[in-house]
Amino acid sequence: MSKIETPRMDAAALEAFLTEHFPQVHADFTVERVDPVGIRVRLKVADRHLRPGGTISGPSMFALADVAIYLAILSRIGPVALAVTTNCSIDFMRKPEAGVDLICDARLLKLGRVLAVGDCILHSEGSEAAVARASLTYSIPPR
Amino acid sequence: MSKIETPRMDAAALEAFLTEHFPQVHADFTVERVDPVGIRVRLKVADRHLRPGGTISGPSMFALADVAIYLAILSRIGPVALAVTTNCSIDFMRKPEAGVDLICDARLLKLGRVLAVGDCILHSEGSEAAVARASLTYSIPPR
Amino acid sequence: MSKIETPRMDAAALEAFLTEHFPQVHADFTVERVDPVGIRVRLKVADRHLRPGGTISGPSMFALADVAIYLAILSRIGPVALAVTTNCSIDFMRKPEAGVDLICDARLLKLGRVLAVGDCILHSEGSEAAVARASLTYSIPPR
Amino acid sequence: MSKIETPRMDAAALEAFLTEHFPQVHADFTVERVDPVGIRVRLKVADRHLRPGGTISGPSMFALADVAIYLAILSRIGPVALAVTTNCSIDFMRKPEAGVDLICDARLLKLGRVLAVGDCILHSEGSEAAVARASLTYSIPPR
Repeated sequence: MSKIETPRMDAAALEAFLTEHFPQVHADFTVERVDPVGIRVRLKVADRHLRPGGTISGPSMFALADVAIYLAILSRIGPVALAVTTNCSIDFMRKPEAGVDLICDARLLKLGRVLAVGDCILHSEGSEAAVARASLTYSIPPR
Repeated sequence: MSKIETPRMDAAALEAFLTEHFPQVHADFTVERVDPVGIRVRLKVADRHLRPGGTISGPSMFALADVAIYLAILSRIGPVALAVTTNCSIDFMRKPEAGVDLICDARLLKLGRVLAVGDCILHSEGSEAAVARASLTYSIPPR
Repeated sequence: MSKIETPRMDAAALEAFLTEHFPQVHADFTVERVDPVGIRVRLKVADRHLRPGGTISGPSMFALADVAIYLAILSRIGPVALAVTTNCSIDFMRKPEAGVDLICDARLLKLGRVLAVGDCILHSEGSEAAVARASLTYSIPPR
Repeated sequence: MSKIETPRMDAAALEAFLTEHFPQVHADFTVERVDPVGIRVRLKVADRHLRPGGTISGPSMFALADVAIYLAILSRIGPVALAVTTNCSIDFMRKPEAGVDLICDARLLKLGRVLAVGDCILHSEGSEAAVARASLTYSIPPR
């Protein structure tokens, strides 16, 4: 994939932003890295993310994909806080491994004047098999 | 829309099922009615569903759409508990009204041997404008 | 569904627009009606739309959904010709009936400043069962 | 990405399959390669794929994504001809370059007993920028 734009915020800056602006959810996520095409975010799996049988809930996986691509956009445009999710398509493909975190590798595909698009693969830590994939579109404010 | 299949479970039976099998989430939802084409489910909006500024979070809306179509399927095939979400496409279109519940009107479009498909509109109670729409596919176990 | 906006173009005006601006495809479609929530468009099924076995091809169904929601938008904003499809999610649910046209009932869900969203059901003429459903987003030019 | 399964059909075998089973469309596409994670397919852009202004039509891009992932599945399971598209989500992100072919890089993400999922990036030949991305699900026959 081609590089979209040089990052302006690193993992620490994104974490600080999340802590300040999304106090309800920042404890769920760790930004592992920002790279030339996107970002890696970890869902620190806890009981509140689980369904009966120990599998990670769909809404928790959606939340991970959503925050990852949101932060990937902010890493390029800076901490403007106003990007809004307009569409998500998500495929759930495999049961996550029990007892390990879920990793999201997200890449930015478009960073336009009014729309940004990214996609991501979710996989259990220590496994390469895709648990889910998602693509999301965000409406972004005038820069 | 054509009627998919005569319901086997009414709103009370679906609520009882949810309470027994999904103890983590049943307090969030009320099954308002089961009708010939689908189902209506309410998200009882509480602080845990909100983002800064008081808007309902994307994962909460995803969860409402997912549970509504899941229960619409069960209302037709009975309490088998094993349908699994394989795909969701969701469009977020308007900010929900503040301080009111979110209502999901879901309809079943296909109830096949291995796949079921439904879609839904989410709107704030007391308003007809669509806050979000979603379509979901479930893999269903042999009947 | 709530009414989005009063139509400015009727079926004849939309057909004339299609003939002028999309000469390659206008022979495939007939605008059957414009109504308060959307539009009905017919795919006049011909050999070029078929796959082996006589079923209608996926791209032909995509094209019908795309043109229907595009025209539904134009019916409200007028003949501006610049709306661009940014996203489509489509579910193929049943084999269409052989030897009959395909009908698309489309509704507008959002007509915003920069984005419009609609969805549609495709069914074979004379049957109520949904062959496919689709939801599409368009980027629309400043009005 | 992890390797899904060792290919059983190479590019030449897939082309032969397409010629035999999809005589209407095989002239549009070339299978450029089969690799460990997926496949590359070329749309040989001709006038019939264009819209006014010379841009490639949405249905032509949909068709390319659909055939690419279909052939990626067959490359692993063999020439069984019965996989059926059940869902596609596609994002149109940039105008393709004029006068050059469109290239689709597809990868298989899941190859299950009843469902297969893949995604792809479409880009103009000679450019790395993504013109479109798509993810598709297929219902596959018992093997």
